[in-house]
Amino acid sequence: MSMSLDGFIADPDGDSRSLYPDLGNLRNSEALAEMIEDTGAVVMGRRSYDMGDTDEGYVDYEHQVPIFVLTHRVPEVPAKHDAARGLSFTFVTDGVESAVEQAKAAAGQKDVQVIGGASAAQQLIRAGLLDQIQISLMPVLLGEGLRLFEHIGSSSRRLEEIKVIDSPGRTDIRYRVA
Amino acid sequence: MSMSLDGFIADPDGDSRSLYPDLGNLRNSEALAEMIEDTGAVVMGRRSYDMGDTDEGYVDYEHQVPIFVLTHRVPEVPAKHDAARGLSFTFVTDGVESAVEQAKAAAGQKDVQVIGGASAAQQLIRAGLLDQIQISLMPVLLGEGLRLFEHIGSSSRRLEEIKVIDSPGRTDIRYRVA
Repeated sequence: MSMSLDGFIADPDGDSRSLYPDLGNLRNSEALAEMIEDTGAVVMGRRSYDMGDTDEGYVDYEHQVPIFVLTHRVPEVPAKHDAARGLSFTFVTDGVESAVEQAKAAAGQKDVQVIGGASAAQQLIRAGLLDQIQISLMPVLLGEGLRLFEHIGSSSRRLEEIKVIDSPGRTDIRYRVA
Repeated sequence: MSMSLDGFIADPDGDSRSLYPDLGNLRNSEALAEMIEDTGAVVMGRRSYDMGDTDEGYVDYEHQVPIFVLTHRVPEVPAKHDAARGLSFTFVTDGVESAVEQAKAAAGQKDVQVIGGASAAQQLIRAGLLDQIQISLMPVLLGEGLRLFEHIGSSSRRLEEIKVIDSPGRTDIRYRVA
């Protein structure tokens, strides 16, 4: 996930564009390309799903793999451009463990990636279901917005740095959760 | 400043040791050595001053340069081991601008470094007095504690990455404040 130096993944309106001075730059990154290659399924929060579902389709969405959306209610109307973009959504209403289990089965030998939002990531951290955390630390202080790391419980969790990539305009760091 | 991945510089008791699995490792870092070499004066918050003033003297304190302590009141009793360690403290009661001005005069051609705590750093960010921010991002999620980046206002501030050092056990990143 992309996060500002002060810990936000979006501004108070839920918009993450303020993190990126140059979106084209992000799209071409080494870390992103590697992650897409390794990803066999995606877990996504409902708010991220709704935000992605614009009239122009799933903007900036690069994963052509099964996507499992955490939600309390299955939407009555399907996303506007699913079929055209080849995206496959499954709505999971029985909790984060179930979503991860289904995503793992779909991913086979590949990784399950969690793509937004803060709430989904926080649920997964609390449940101890994350093996790795990859952060693109963006060189900006937003001052306010949606924090990635809060509501994750008060116990300390040791991480292990696996990889640091000093990409132009940001720092990508991958951690193993101990 | 050292900060956990979730943005804390100390646990809820103000203790920053939980950030470091291995203090010795920190002491020998390239980034730290370079920073000490470049530092001509220090600005420090009152709480950091008080926390450093233990019976064993200024523990883990490496800067033998003039130190300007931001405070509302000058302490009646001097720090226990000032003289023995060669440390020079000046208490500044007329605000952060004054502290920075005095520190710059003392530093000459060298840098003024802000060493803790969160409150001092936040005041300096709000006042637009920081030229650079250096963060040692520690591989740990504390879950709760003292946040470095809050109360810094709601306007977005663009940073520019100057340098990333992938040190053992953490990532040091230096930013220029745009």
